[in-house]
Amino acid sequence: MFREALAFPPSNRTFLEPHLPPKNETEPLKPNLPFTTLTFATSLDSSLALAPGTRTTLSGPQSKAMTHYLRSRHDAILIGVGTAVADNPGLNCRIEGVGGYGGEGLDGQPRPIVLDPRARWEFTKESKILELVREGKGRAPFIITSTGTVPSAEKRTLLESHGGKFIPLDLLVDGNGERRLDWTAVLECLRNEGLKSVMIEGGGTVINSLLEPGWAHLVDSVIVTIAPTWLGQGGVVVSPRRRVEGGEVVPAARLRDVKWYPFGEDVVLCGRL
Amino acid sequence: MFREALAFPPSNRTFLEPHLPPKNETEPLKPNLPFTTLTFATSLDSSLALAPGTRTTLSGPQSKAMTHYLRSRHDAILIGVGTAVADNPGLNCRIEGVGGYGGEGLDGQPRPIVLDPRARWEFTKESKILELVREGKGRAPFIITSTGTVPSAEKRTLLESHGGKFIPLDLLVDGNGERRLDWTAVLECLRNEGLKSVMIEGGGTVINSLLEPGWAHLVDSVIVTIAPTWLGQGGVVVSPRRRVEGGEVVPAARLRDVKWYPFGEDVVLCGRL
Repeated sequence: MFREALAFPPSNRTFLEPHLPPKNETEPLKPNLPFTTLTFATSLDSSLALAPGTRTTLSGPQSKAMTHYLRSRHDAILIGVGTAVADNPGLNCRIEGVGGYGGEGLDGQPRPIVLDPRARWEFTKESKILELVREGKGRAPFIITSTGTVPSAEKRTLLESHGGKFIPLDLLVDGNGERRLDWTAVLECLRNEGLKSVMIEGGGTVINSLLEPGWAHLVDSVIVTIAPTWLGQGGVVVSPRRRVEGGEVVPAARLRDVKWYPFGEDVVLCGRL
Repeated sequence: MFREALAFPPSNRTFLEPHLPPKNETEPLKPNLPFTTLTFATSLDSSLALAPGTRTTLSGPQSKAMTHYLRSRHDAILIGVGTAVADNPGLNCRIEGVGGYGGEGLDGQPRPIVLDPRARWEFTKESKILELVREGKGRAPFIITSTGTVPSAEKRTLLESHGGKFIPLDLLVDGNGERRLDWTAVLECLRNEGLKSVMIEGGGTVINSLLEPGWAHLVDSVIVTIAPTWLGQGGVVVSPRRRVEGGEVVPAARLRDVKWYPFGEDVVLCGRL
């Protein structure tokens, strides 16, 4: 009945625990912000995919099950609109025992969040994410748009009929003489919606933006899976903007409290920014 | 007396052994070719250095000692001219007990090989590599040039007075409608010089070239150290040329027999192409 469900044995869960949102509800460290995990899978040459707009299977089945386990441990999962358009993603959790896969209601199903400033994601009734909602296997997305962007009435009606919504937000701030995405506003918005933890999954633009010095303090945990493959030049690359200090180029970001866990053919890297 | 010597304890050597040239002289698998190890250290965004022509310290002291241990296990170490020009490298081995660091003569000191088709490396008597030769701490380089390139008489005399030499070679072959470096010729040349194993260390051009499908069969072992840092855009990147099969982009190279070894803050990846 739940043949699509994925197993992720307890023996594999242990090493991840220190890198996940705390299970016991204690006073949060940052009351206005969710616990924020940045997680993605790359090749050895730091590519997420062979080319923009394509979906590339990089990591093995174990790593896929891990991703779904991580989803079960967060209230929300966030992606950029590019990934939503390219992948037609389900953005649900298929771990054995969550709602829709043997569990009650929607227990363990995270809320999908799509960052879509100009509301350009043309989802339809047939989009996988909405099909899963109708099957009781996932939640409808909250789509964060830039204040002033007006989605079509059809899209709004379709989204709301599934239990999702558009959330307009002042998405941009001035920084270093340019307008850029205000991650503080995005994360505060999620916390206001009652979402106490969020797993940020991609794509490249979202990840590279969060790795910049201005936002890194918002990230509580980083979990990167690396596959022993070189995708080659021209892929969608994770590499933050070059960082210059005192006229010199310096490393853009470094992880601390680093742990490496070999995992099948892949390695899982956990740390903090 | 040997305060520059590096220690690499036997407990760390065990995991590397299956990925190194065999210690016991048996019949080589490929009689005309050396055992070839490709080894380098990158950031998470697959950069060797922050920018072309700069030397970036990526990995920790343990990984540095590992590199020198690997050098002690190969007859030769090879770099491209770009690295020779940028780094003024010593290209010797500083592991405790090799020649110059407590051992006899030049035992355990690899032969440096510089791939320099147009003889553009302007080494002098003060170049670190020649200083080490005069101190009895390393061997003089063999510099492989393209047939027809004539190095200056001064450079030739200086090199030969230290025990090195220029080796002219037909370096280019036609492949896929373009002229490219003939790695078979380079490696056969080393074997003819009596060098039964070679460790290829960089830089980016050399590594990316060897990762292409046409040459990958020449590589017996791959050892990559990854540091938990993103250097940022604009670095010297390891990423082979994009590979297209049947009109579709496919992954450029994949490792098999993969092992990951967490090593200090870094991870060491060993495998075969």
